Amino acid sequence: MAVTGSPELLIVMSAHATPDQIEDVVARLDEAGCAAYVTEGKDATVIGAIGERELLAALPLEGFPGVEQVLPILKPYKLVSREISPDPSVIDVRGRRIGHGWFGFIAGPCTVETRAQTLETARVVAAEGVTMLRGGAFKPRTSPYAFQGLGLEGLKILAEARDETGLPLVTELMDPRDVDAVVEYADVIQIGARNMQNFNLLSEVGRAGKPVLIKRGPSASIEELLMAAEYVVKEGNTQVILCERGIKTFERSTRYTLDISAIPVLKHETHLPVIVDPSHAAGKRDLVLPLARAAVAAGADGVIVEVHPRPEEALCDGPQLIPTAEFGEFAGEIRALASLMGKTIG
Amino acid sequence: MAVTGSPELLIVMSAHATPDQIEDVVARLDEAGCAAYVTEGKDATVIGAIGERELLAALPLEGFPGVEQVLPILKPYKLVSREISPDPSVIDVRGRRIGHGWFGFIAGPCTVETRAQTLETARVVAAEGVTMLRGGAFKPRTSPYAFQGLGLEGLKILAEARDETGLPLVTELMDPRDVDAVVEYADVIQIGARNMQNFNLLSEVGRAGKPVLIKRGPSASIEELLMAAEYVVKEGNTQVILCERGIKTFERSTRYTLDISAIPVLKHETHLPVIVDPSHAAGKRDLVLPLARAAVAAGADGVIVEVHPRPEEALCDGPQLIPTAEFGEFAGEIRALASLMGKTIG
Amino acid sequence: MAVTGSPELLIVMSAHATPDQIEDVVARLDEAGCAAYVTEGKDATVIGAIGERELLAALPLEGFPGVEQVLPILKPYKLVSREISPDPSVIDVRGRRIGHGWFGFIAGPCTVETRAQTLETARVVAAEGVTMLRGGAFKPRTSPYAFQGLGLEGLKILAEARDETGLPLVTELMDPRDVDAVVEYADVIQIGARNMQNFNLLSEVGRAGKPVLIKRGPSASIEELLMAAEYVVKEGNTQVILCERGIKTFERSTRYTLDISAIPVLKHETHLPVIVDPSHAAGKRDLVLPLARAAVAAGADGVIVEVHPRPEEALCDGPQLIPTAEFGEFAGEIRALASLMGKTIG
Amino acid sequence: MAVTGSPELLIVMSAHATPDQIEDVVARLDEAGCAAYVTEGKDATVIGAIGERELLAALPLEGFPGVEQVLPILKPYKLVSREISPDPSVIDVRGRRIGHGWFGFIAGPCTVETRAQTLETARVVAAEGVTMLRGGAFKPRTSPYAFQGLGLEGLKILAEARDETGLPLVTELMDPRDVDAVVEYADVIQIGARNMQNFNLLSEVGRAGKPVLIKRGPSASIEELLMAAEYVVKEGNTQVILCERGIKTFERSTRYTLDISAIPVLKHETHLPVIVDPSHAAGKRDLVLPLARAAVAAGADGVIVEVHPRPEEALCDGPQLIPTAEFGEFAGEIRALASLMGKTIG
Repeated sequence: MAVTGSPELLIVMSAHATPDQIEDVVARLDEAGCAAYVTEGKDATVIGAIGERELLAALPLEGFPGVEQVLPILKPYKLVSREISPDPSVIDVRGRRIGHGWFGFIAGPCTVETRAQTLETARVVAAEGVTMLRGGAFKPRTSPYAFQGLGLEGLKILAEARDETGLPLVTELMDPRDVDAVVEYADVIQIGARNMQNFNLLSEVGRAGKPVLIKRGPSASIEELLMAAEYVVKEGNTQVILCERGIKTFERSTRYTLDISAIPVLKHETHLPVIVDPSHAAGKRDLVLPLARAAVAAGADGVIVEVHPRPEEALCDGPQLIPTAEFGEFAGEIRALASLMGKTIG
Repeated sequence: MAVTGSPELLIVMSAHATPDQIEDVVARLDEAGCAAYVTEGKDATVIGAIGERELLAALPLEGFPGVEQVLPILKPYKLVSREISPDPSVIDVRGRRIGHGWFGFIAGPCTVETRAQTLETARVVAAEGVTMLRGGAFKPRTSPYAFQGLGLEGLKILAEARDETGLPLVTELMDPRDVDAVVEYADVIQIGARNMQNFNLLSEVGRAGKPVLIKRGPSASIEELLMAAEYVVKEGNTQVILCERGIKTFERSTRYTLDISAIPVLKHETHLPVIVDPSHAAGKRDLVLPLARAAVAAGADGVIVEVHPRPEEALCDGPQLIPTAEFGEFAGEIRALASLMGKTIG
Repeated sequence: MAVTGSPELLIVMSAHATPDQIEDVVARLDEAGCAAYVTEGKDATVIGAIGERELLAALPLEGFPGVEQVLPILKPYKLVSREISPDPSVIDVRGRRIGHGWFGFIAGPCTVETRAQTLETARVVAAEGVTMLRGGAFKPRTSPYAFQGLGLEGLKILAEARDETGLPLVTELMDPRDVDAVVEYADVIQIGARNMQNFNLLSEVGRAGKPVLIKRGPSASIEELLMAAEYVVKEGNTQVILCERGIKTFERSTRYTLDISAIPVLKHETHLPVIVDPSHAAGKRDLVLPLARAAVAAGADGVIVEVHPRPEEALCDGPQLIPTAEFGEFAGEIRALASLMGKTIG
Repeated sequence: MAVTGSPELLIVMSAHATPDQIEDVVARLDEAGCAAYVTEGKDATVIGAIGERELLAALPLEGFPGVEQVLPILKPYKLVSREISPDPSVIDVRGRRIGHGWFGFIAGPCTVETRAQTLETARVVAAEGVTMLRGGAFKPRTSPYAFQGLGLEGLKILAEARDETGLPLVTELMDPRDVDAVVEYADVIQIGARNMQNFNLLSEVGRAGKPVLIKRGPSASIEELLMAAEYVVKEGNTQVILCERGIKTFERSTRYTLDISAIPVLKHETHLPVIVDPSHAAGKRDLVLPLARAAVAAGADGVIVEVHPRPEEALCDGPQLIPTAEFGEFAGEIRALASLMGKTIG
């Protein structure tokens, strides 16, 4: 048997599969232009399938009679993988860099509430040496009765803060109909956790020509996060930053469980930079610093945190906001640890 | 102390809270137009807050110094709750009914692949007495390389199947920019699991004037599903059907874990009808019938299942599709059980 | 390539594996008395390993340099599998049967609190036609301050209830040092969810010569449950009943999420009977009946529920207990559904 | 209203509760020697209950008619809490310390396989400055066909390694019948993750007079871990070390999801030291160092890792073992980070 490629899929036939059933699977692979090699055994027959992974992924092989399991061997993502681009990417946002030794330190208000609160927060974080400003004008909220953000007006206030501080602006896009407005004001377009599998939105920002920050959905696997990035990169936009922000588990003492292992796993799988949002994972202010430190120590390329002059007056996520008065200490600890890890903030 | 309402929130102050900290919380409630009553004790002080739940939900009370925990007493949803509408709703879709004793039996292709496959499937399920036809023209896919549906062309084929069989059509809407096209062809607009917290899309279908079927997201809590429905109902559209289709857990022998308890829990909390999609939860054909039976026995108001003439040729979800040749037996079992449960299919 | 057995494991080497690394894996398999066949390809090399599955499971192949992943093909359980015993087992407990068409209806007190409460409950459930009596004398409790059961005294009260009603007794064993005492009084030894991976206890009851009921741990996979049963059967005791009772998930509206899919999955994998405990999964009385019905409809071989004359006075799990006054109605519904499913209660 | 204590529980009555139902709850509290104060409102009545928390925990208040929910205000643990002992504990094991600034660096073989492998590993880790030696003689294994450890013979080999290196020995106890043997050789008794809720075993080691290391179960909440420790401390043994080692989630790229947030949460709740086992959480060698670093940065009081001279020959957990040849580099990184965090290894 001459096998000229390597299998992308292994199809394990059940012990009771008939020769006809095995033949049917081979015929289907053949019909799709894929090669098959068959290894028959005492208890099971294994068919290795070789071909374009897109073609193979689309074949419903598990639906064939006699098929016990289908084992994918190669990963479903391609453009975002280390196999394609072994060297880590650096995302350059108006001179500020993330990835491959550059540490992105992103901070700012959770939500734009007022011009004063936004500018006050922006000035404090800028003075402490962060590299980008974050802030939300469109806010996805679980409750239709909660504050949904200031929309376009919020974007304008953020742009003012950006202009004053010189920091590039990261802000969320929720709706494909708002792409133009957000692109006009933002330097990095954020796709929020709840939209991580809003595939049309992903394709849209893939065509928008701006760096994209994708937050992992609370129930998305690491593989699904990489596939979300693949949607963006497939449209030609390779400037993608991935962000771990906690997953849903049974543990109730924190809002989400920060999946710290995602950092080294992602760094192994992809060339894209990986940052962490400790604020949303924790849901509690006291946990933000230890989780941010853990992220840096685990090898993250950056952190993104929420800051507010008076958290007790915030319209959204008050319990997790770092008060501006405490941000200097926070920034100092992050800088010390990033330095120990050999990272440059700049 | 005269308390004239009942508390919506209980704020438990830490054992070390100072009188000033307690005073600050009371002052903030007062400022927001809410009443507060304070019960001081040996180890903890508890503040009951009375006011509009929307106002209270927006207050960041957990962010106040000295606050140990904030316990919500009333549920965050309102319009979808039994408190507001104690009687179960019936959704009438062109004469076919779901809810309050009416059992919705929805079946059809996962995805429109060809006109022939769609019409063949529609005829089989119609002949077996289902009450609505399902079928996907826009398909959300984890991989950008997978088949994404036929789009508008698929809608037209589905409309033809609807016209021929007389069955109302359930189909998915993924993008707010497609609302008009989908409304033109669909009788029920489906919001898929991955879009359950696409809040703009929810508000949009709330204004579209058609019944809406919302699938629970794979990591959405029951409360979050109800809040998604609240987004639709808040826009004036009370014709909402909820659908349990499995949640993500550590168990790997099924694609998702069907949360069968969600049925009685939802039926207790809301007046809206609750149906189950056993096909997506299972991911395997052999499990679809037992899970569908379990759903009926647990009190579901309907089931939605995927059928295909030749699952082994399907472009999507082949392993979970019921072959048309076996659908008669499936339908017979569902009818027998629905009848034992006192439900009418009609 | 002459392959005389079928692979138990497939070892996928990384794209960058050197010939020496491939050779090392083959040599290690060889050394362990296992055969290896190698398929080299463009992007990956796959090694199929053939041998005793115990030997292969013990080899740390994932630790070898160059190994990308190790894919097990055959299941790790053996004696409990359908491959070994295709026909469903029937467990006969003093004339009452579970499995292969026989439906086990097990009910009784959660915990023995007093002689009066136990006898009163036993009489009610016996009068309604249940087939076995359950009751706890040793209670595993999360809190050391909670009621821990009456111990030996409780066993004696249960034995009295058994003698009066003629119903076989199911009761929990927590400690290998109590085996003799429990064996003296019990007809079925229950291994509780928290002890499902107490491997010494499992081996001990494997040698005790009495039927064993194993509850699935709240975080145990279906495969781990089957491996727990394998521990018992390996000691020569084939009389094992498996019990699904809910797993831990992010959903907070129920105590546990009843994994209803576990029933058909287990029935497919093993010849052992599978029952369901809806009381512990739900944690709320109103959910017990819908979940019990769902279990029957999904194909369970029995249910086990908790009953109390006055739940509001119960020392343990009060909220989930069915009042004796309502048990007749409960039993009637279960009987009707079991009959529709073709099961015999006897 | 004169309230002389603070409420331990808040009982929220349903909007439809009758005055008699409210009266019944108050009467039951009264009967149990607890005080009740009632706040009636428009939509709900809330009853605050004051009394011994053990008494209140045992009352099945959720089972009473008319009760909507029962909200515990105080934590169920007591002796392990910061409320009882605000200052962090230091556990001193033959002169090596963990807690309150002392960092415990524990390393050694996963399992004793041979005398040579154990002594070789012990010498390497001792030379790199670890503070305690770990090693397993009794191994809990999912499969009854896997290597179960050398038992008593293994303990003797570990004792030899302890004597030669002078390092205190941490080893696992699985069965209450082995307490005497383990106490004779061990300096710290480890309770493994699968036995975390083996309550009899916990009470037993509470009486054994040796420090105890409790690993968090893969599905145990942080609160359940603290309750497990409470079982030990209640017997008079306050020398307890808690260990986070990963929880079960839907994510499949790692064996478990290391719950890094558990560190700051536990440090806030309890005075007991908290360490992390990155080896078992990761299941892959490459992840051990980043996760160990993250643990130190998050504030852990120590780490426990597995080392082997030739991981590819290991009988258990080969893929996650650090080779002795790489342990020097590992130890160097841990020391640098512990130092930055202000910890002393000694």
